Amino acid sequence: MITSEVYKLADTVLAKKNIIAAADQLRDYVVSCRRDFHKHAEVGWTEFRTGSIVARTLLDMGGWQVEYGPSIYDKSLMMGMPSEAQLEKYMQRAIAQGGDKEIIEKMRGGYTGVVATLVTGDGNGPTVAFRVDIDANDLIEAKEEKHRPYREGFASINDGAMHGCGHDCHTATGLLAARILLANKDLLPPGKIKIIFQTGEEGGRGGQPMAAAGVADGADYFMAIHVGVQKDGALGGIAAGVSHMMNSTKSDVFFKGVSAHAGGDPDKGKNALLAAANAVINLYAISRHSAGTSRVNVGVLEAGVGRNVIADRAMMKMEVRGETDTVHEYMQERALAVIEGAAKMYGVDYVVKKAGQTITAPCDDKMVDFVVDAAMEIPGIKRAIRVESMSGGGEDCTFFMRRVQAGGGIATMAMIGTNGPAVAHNEYFDVDEEVLLNGAKLIGVVAVNALAKGKAK
Amino acid sequence: MITSEVYKLADTVLAKKNIIAAADQLRDYVVSCRRDFHKHAEVGWTEFRTGSIVARTLLDMGGWQVEYGPSIYDKSLMMGMPSEAQLEKYMQRAIAQGGDKEIIEKMRGGYTGVVATLVTGDGNGPTVAFRVDIDANDLIEAKEEKHRPYREGFASINDGAMHGCGHDCHTATGLLAARILLANKDLLPPGKIKIIFQTGEEGGRGGQPMAAAGVADGADYFMAIHVGVQKDGALGGIAAGVSHMMNSTKSDVFFKGVSAHAGGDPDKGKNALLAAANAVINLYAISRHSAGTSRVNVGVLEAGVGRNVIADRAMMKMEVRGETDTVHEYMQERALAVIEGAAKMYGVDYVVKKAGQTITAPCDDKMVDFVVDAAMEIPGIKRAIRVESMSGGGEDCTFFMRRVQAGGGIATMAMIGTNGPAVAHNEYFDVDEEVLLNGAKLIGVVAVNALAKGKAK
Amino acid sequence: MITSEVYKLADTVLAKKNIIAAADQLRDYVVSCRRDFHKHAEVGWTEFRTGSIVARTLLDMGGWQVEYGPSIYDKSLMMGMPSEAQLEKYMQRAIAQGGDKEIIEKMRGGYTGVVATLVTGDGNGPTVAFRVDIDANDLIEAKEEKHRPYREGFASINDGAMHGCGHDCHTATGLLAARILLANKDLLPPGKIKIIFQTGEEGGRGGQPMAAAGVADGADYFMAIHVGVQKDGALGGIAAGVSHMMNSTKSDVFFKGVSAHAGGDPDKGKNALLAAANAVINLYAISRHSAGTSRVNVGVLEAGVGRNVIADRAMMKMEVRGETDTVHEYMQERALAVIEGAAKMYGVDYVVKKAGQTITAPCDDKMVDFVVDAAMEIPGIKRAIRVESMSGGGEDCTFFMRRVQAGGGIATMAMIGTNGPAVAHNEYFDVDEEVLLNGAKLIGVVAVNALAKGKAK
Amino acid sequence: MITSEVYKLADTVLAKKNIIAAADQLRDYVVSCRRDFHKHAEVGWTEFRTGSIVARTLLDMGGWQVEYGPSIYDKSLMMGMPSEAQLEKYMQRAIAQGGDKEIIEKMRGGYTGVVATLVTGDGNGPTVAFRVDIDANDLIEAKEEKHRPYREGFASINDGAMHGCGHDCHTATGLLAARILLANKDLLPPGKIKIIFQTGEEGGRGGQPMAAAGVADGADYFMAIHVGVQKDGALGGIAAGVSHMMNSTKSDVFFKGVSAHAGGDPDKGKNALLAAANAVINLYAISRHSAGTSRVNVGVLEAGVGRNVIADRAMMKMEVRGETDTVHEYMQERALAVIEGAAKMYGVDYVVKKAGQTITAPCDDKMVDFVVDAAMEIPGIKRAIRVESMSGGGEDCTFFMRRVQAGGGIATMAMIGTNGPAVAHNEYFDVDEEVLLNGAKLIGVVAVNALAKGKAK
Repeated sequence: MITSEVYKLADTVLAKKNIIAAADQLRDYVVSCRRDFHKHAEVGWTEFRTGSIVARTLLDMGGWQVEYGPSIYDKSLMMGMPSEAQLEKYMQRAIAQGGDKEIIEKMRGGYTGVVATLVTGDGNGPTVAFRVDIDANDLIEAKEEKHRPYREGFASINDGAMHGCGHDCHTATGLLAARILLANKDLLPPGKIKIIFQTGEEGGRGGQPMAAAGVADGADYFMAIHVGVQKDGALGGIAAGVSHMMNSTKSDVFFKGVSAHAGGDPDKGKNALLAAANAVINLYAISRHSAGTSRVNVGVLEAGVGRNVIADRAMMKMEVRGETDTVHEYMQERALAVIEGAAKMYGVDYVVKKAGQTITAPCDDKMVDFVVDAAMEIPGIKRAIRVESMSGGGEDCTFFMRRVQAGGGIATMAMIGTNGPAVAHNEYFDVDEEVLLNGAKLIGVVAVNALAKGKAK
Repeated sequence: MITSEVYKLADTVLAKKNIIAAADQLRDYVVSCRRDFHKHAEVGWTEFRTGSIVARTLLDMGGWQVEYGPSIYDKSLMMGMPSEAQLEKYMQRAIAQGGDKEIIEKMRGGYTGVVATLVTGDGNGPTVAFRVDIDANDLIEAKEEKHRPYREGFASINDGAMHGCGHDCHTATGLLAARILLANKDLLPPGKIKIIFQTGEEGGRGGQPMAAAGVADGADYFMAIHVGVQKDGALGGIAAGVSHMMNSTKSDVFFKGVSAHAGGDPDKGKNALLAAANAVINLYAISRHSAGTSRVNVGVLEAGVGRNVIADRAMMKMEVRGETDTVHEYMQERALAVIEGAAKMYGVDYVVKKAGQTITAPCDDKMVDFVVDAAMEIPGIKRAIRVESMSGGGEDCTFFMRRVQAGGGIATMAMIGTNGPAVAHNEYFDVDEEVLLNGAKLIGVVAVNALAKGKAK
Repeated sequence: MITSEVYKLADTVLAKKNIIAAADQLRDYVVSCRRDFHKHAEVGWTEFRTGSIVARTLLDMGGWQVEYGPSIYDKSLMMGMPSEAQLEKYMQRAIAQGGDKEIIEKMRGGYTGVVATLVTGDGNGPTVAFRVDIDANDLIEAKEEKHRPYREGFASINDGAMHGCGHDCHTATGLLAARILLANKDLLPPGKIKIIFQTGEEGGRGGQPMAAAGVADGADYFMAIHVGVQKDGALGGIAAGVSHMMNSTKSDVFFKGVSAHAGGDPDKGKNALLAAANAVINLYAISRHSAGTSRVNVGVLEAGVGRNVIADRAMMKMEVRGETDTVHEYMQERALAVIEGAAKMYGVDYVVKKAGQTITAPCDDKMVDFVVDAAMEIPGIKRAIRVESMSGGGEDCTFFMRRVQAGGGIATMAMIGTNGPAVAHNEYFDVDEEVLLNGAKLIGVVAVNALAKGKAK
Repeated sequence: MITSEVYKLADTVLAKKNIIAAADQLRDYVVSCRRDFHKHAEVGWTEFRTGSIVARTLLDMGGWQVEYGPSIYDKSLMMGMPSEAQLEKYMQRAIAQGGDKEIIEKMRGGYTGVVATLVTGDGNGPTVAFRVDIDANDLIEAKEEKHRPYREGFASINDGAMHGCGHDCHTATGLLAARILLANKDLLPPGKIKIIFQTGEEGGRGGQPMAAAGVADGADYFMAIHVGVQKDGALGGIAAGVSHMMNSTKSDVFFKGVSAHAGGDPDKGKNALLAAANAVINLYAISRHSAGTSRVNVGVLEAGVGRNVIADRAMMKMEVRGETDTVHEYMQERALAVIEGAAKMYGVDYVVKKAGQTITAPCDDKMVDFVVDAAMEIPGIKRAIRVESMSGGGEDCTFFMRRVQAGGGIATMAMIGTNGPAVAHNEYFDVDEEVLLNGAKLIGVVAVNALAKGKAK
């Protein structure tokens, strides 16, 4: 019996060694993957190309069970969905840009996520799950020589979509991890490894319906990853957990007034653009809260149709965030009052439509320690801190975390450090691609350790 | 000699009688013309279908000299032009919707206007010129049963373009007038009749470059027409002149800031959307002027790209108007200060691009009387007033008027009354189509009287 | 009988000659009068010194019947009254500054106006009434050498009160007119002459309650006067009537929120100052009206008590104006919506209290002609136009005009031209004092002619 | 020698026992003191009555050295001073309300603070210094039965001044501590005890010039005290240190435009009130900072003089706060840009005058422990925590703290818990007066322990 245990231990050590080496050998592969996703950036619910290529790649590997389509979503919780006509357009674009037509067809309706499961041994063991997100931002990427993706030809060709938060890296990292884990399958202790390729993280749209569909249920260990970018010195570090994740509510607000000739009949109009402009300024002017950090943003405003016409419509995309439930509720309540007041000032109607949500979830100390220990086994990772403050950020991996925790598992979100010239969501965002290897190695080692350790709690 | 004069007088009387009768017989024709233009509404500089059909129709009539393309524009004064890519798109749409491909090709670059000239007798006589405008508004037409164009199937199929100011009627009226004048060509005294189909009146863009190209030069008599819509009782009336036409300056304003993650790095951004919102409200708040009527409007505002990104760009389409030069200059000067201040508040850059202009021009008393007299000869026209206040409206036919007046001619702008359910630039705008006949008859009778009378001054 | 008529005519001519000569002799008197009122400026309802000196002066002349106190006001219409404590303070100041203590006591409660009546002959004849207003503006007078009232020592010594609209001149003119008419009483045809010294014209507060009390009832002829100031060339001209007088509603708006420590508990407060700031900007942003001139102003805003306290209270003094009833009602309705919306945005309560009102009244053509004819008899008056546009101004002499017109009389408001360095309500406002003589002469000649002519209609 | 040490220890223990007992016996005294100060609330730089009574009381005790007047201030750092006329007015009021005339005369110029020093033994020992602040807030105290100070007759009789932050308690606590320490002087180890009665804490005005004058220099131990109010359960607790004290800059902003008649010449004015309203809203809209807590407030806005006059002046009292230097500088820089932009929008001039400042200073761990230990010796104090977050608050006791720390001493600010119905700076602010005893006892015990312990570092 001792012998058997020793063999198992030897296998585990070997598996990790192999995994780390395999990642290094696949450097070119993962970089080209990342750049391909970067070039064909797709925003939330429209990741038809990205999702279909992820699924196709996993299927082609053989060994991974691959799920996609409506079964991995709770449809009632899919918010902020584009119109059918827009979805159709993006499906056609995805096909034209090399997506897998057959798979895309099954993703119709915005079901663009993928869940991959690897059963090791007899499957009789713990389950360890990872979350990577795959969607791009509503951003127009910089088209200047100083911006490497542009200079080297992989800037986004999809107007209004840019990977400005590194999800292209996460997707590529997930695929690399899948590949190197599969290659060492026979060395792994029995259990299950899941990689969840989540759609629509931006705007807090994909996590909730996928979590509610149960795709992370039963996991004993859960880790979401995200690149953490700083100008210098961040590469090689990780933070095994995050604090200060924000609750947030994302809303689309529509104002409806009455149009009229701005020269001839200005008094006959009801000016939706003016109502929206007032709402915007006063949303930002909502008071800070004594109980913690808050945020508010109106990221998009579109109003009116003609220069000399009183604008009869305005639409804005906004969000509020709060470090605690109290702060978050305060922000949302104040925001609704501001919108109502602004509409009243100009006698226009309005509708507020919820478009997304993030919640907070604590990172489990045990899981944080577990990730720190794993990180310390990886040559490329030089520093691991336990917890980093997200300072204003929100993440909907928290929906998975809460499900996992409710089921008795332990969960965390880890930041994989890397260097880059710009802050997230900026048009010059980029990363040192070495991070792709570090991320895949971390997933690999955490997976091996988790299977080796058994049930977490 | 007396006999000859009497013959001429008889011819003239007969010509007018014929013209009026011909108009009545062509009722179905002119209505279908107007509805065809209405259904295929095209905004300023993109009237490829409308312009090419006007030119083709006139050419097919035989007898009218038809000019179009770059020769009838002073290119240096063409403002507010869409991008080449957009022009190309609209050219293709025009062709797909039945425009004349050959003519459209010559209108490439936005030269979508047409000038038609009919030489009567030996041409040795006065010149009388008419202006009709052909562009649609940036409006989304109502799609409801209560809106006749929708109910009867001729609502605009071009999204974001709608004839909400009646220029479809003007175009059809111009073609009908051309047809009935040509049919009676041999009865007309010697001289020249011009009909100017002007592009881009909305936004004050087409009048200035066409006038500067000299298309109305040499006219002894000039009349622009416009429908004048009221709920009830307006049909059958005309106003032979207008007062209170407004000077206006139309501008596109671009704000450029810096984007950043709204949750993680809000302080790193420079918020162009917030700057624009402040500009909007304070533009409307520019003080009224003691010296006369003023107007200001921001008809379009588009800002930002992503909900959780500090908006780094905003664009707004605005205009100011003033009854006098002083008031107009005051409005423009204050507007620029407001924009500068708003940009400064948020540390963003901005550019103001002039996109159009209208000026004032007095209607000549003599021409007003001349039009009133002509109107009184037409059975369908029951009331003629001399002057109506435009109360806030602007018109760039004034550029033609000033050229004509500078050359010794007399000029006016006449409003042809009709009934309709909504004010101009409203999504429910429509007219009683009887106005098409009244307009064409008025052009016909004014033309005949002008040729018969000889040089105006 | 002819002889008698001739005598009368001679008397009339002589009276006018004497009156004009007497005015010239009293130049120093009227100038010192005006400067005394200017120096001791008192705003509406607090003209205790001014009113009591007017009454005392008239009483001292002997011959004029002098009414003051509650009997000449309809108390229910006295709006915008200061608190009792403030009234008391101003009464004491008036006494300290040389007001007539006994008379002031009878003016307690803000009844600071005076009505003077001169009965000529047996009184059996027409009644001619004049209105002069006596209140100052809420203005802080310039204290610079370049400002003559300061340089010559008659700038207001009452902080926050300044004669910036010339009512000091009107008061002095009224007293001079009283004096020169009385001196020629025996030459005047039988009838009655009234001079109404109205309080609280600024803010539209005094005219309505005095008119409603009937002080101008029974007048056959009515003329209100006002100085009309321009930089140059205005002295020596008059306008016998005005057009475009504005309806207006004056309101005091109170916002009530909740205070809290701005550092420690900003979310606990409800910010009345922020609500008010939003109301202000959006009041100015109310759209221009197609049916005519409008105005809006927030002249005073006071909010908050401590720098680091969320302001729980704000008060603003505002007014809207409209050339027609429609425009005026539109402005008031929109203003109330703006205030309501602004309060709603910040969750604060509000109250709108009406503080004053002006209405329009047409100047009668007959009275305008009558005044022009009178003006032409006066050497100092070189030009008389019939009507001048008030362009945005409002006047509550209209309440008297409507009463007079309703009773069968004819009425006008005349502008007496003069030169001055600044526009009305500016801290540098001043006049060429020659206007005092012209005004008194005009009152004198109009009075004589009216009595001579008999009943107006 | 051992004997001597034992005697000393016994004295020290006895001194503390006596001090605690004495405080309890003087309950009525300290309550009446506090209520007297509460009733005669005086805001910063005008505490002539409060300061003079403090000085007189200390002098009357005999034993304390009492300093006041210009010598305890660095005049160059006295910001936000009222005008001489106002100071004069407040001096007269202070005298009329029972202040010490002779002392007040020496405080002329706003030098209203007091520094008291008690030399124990031969003075050869450590120095321990305490700071209490004495100024009231710019608040209008509630005048309702439910507010105890009103119900029991000690609500402020000075309009616009209210002790809404408990400085009345601090002042009374300081006097009680002085009394009970003096009574046990002979039992105290040798050294020096200082009590600094600081003026103008609100607005961050008094701490800097008093600290710069060196009044706390040489202290080995320093403790500032402040009441910490919560609805329930706070009485009996103390926090021995505070974190998150905010940097702040307080400014007075003046806008200067041009006045004009709002009806007649609105375009001639330059509207300072509108500029200020825009500044206000956009100050609140300054983005949150990713690096920490920030605050902004415009607590007072006063603009305009007359309802129908374009406002030519506006004044606002504002402040920004930031948890770190970076955040604070960001807020101030953005605030200045907002003000400049708002002025530019309306073409008005502006001046920003610095009116006060607070900085941060860390509480020394050793001093915090020292205070916790002392607190645990006091029967009335049931709970002591080491550090409480100030969450947005600022305090200028930090100027003393930094001086003390620079000189080698250790310093803290302690919060003395108490129950009360409302948050600080609210018109219903009040405390459970038991806190007065707890505060005085804490000062007493800390003083004894400090003298007994010797030099701190």
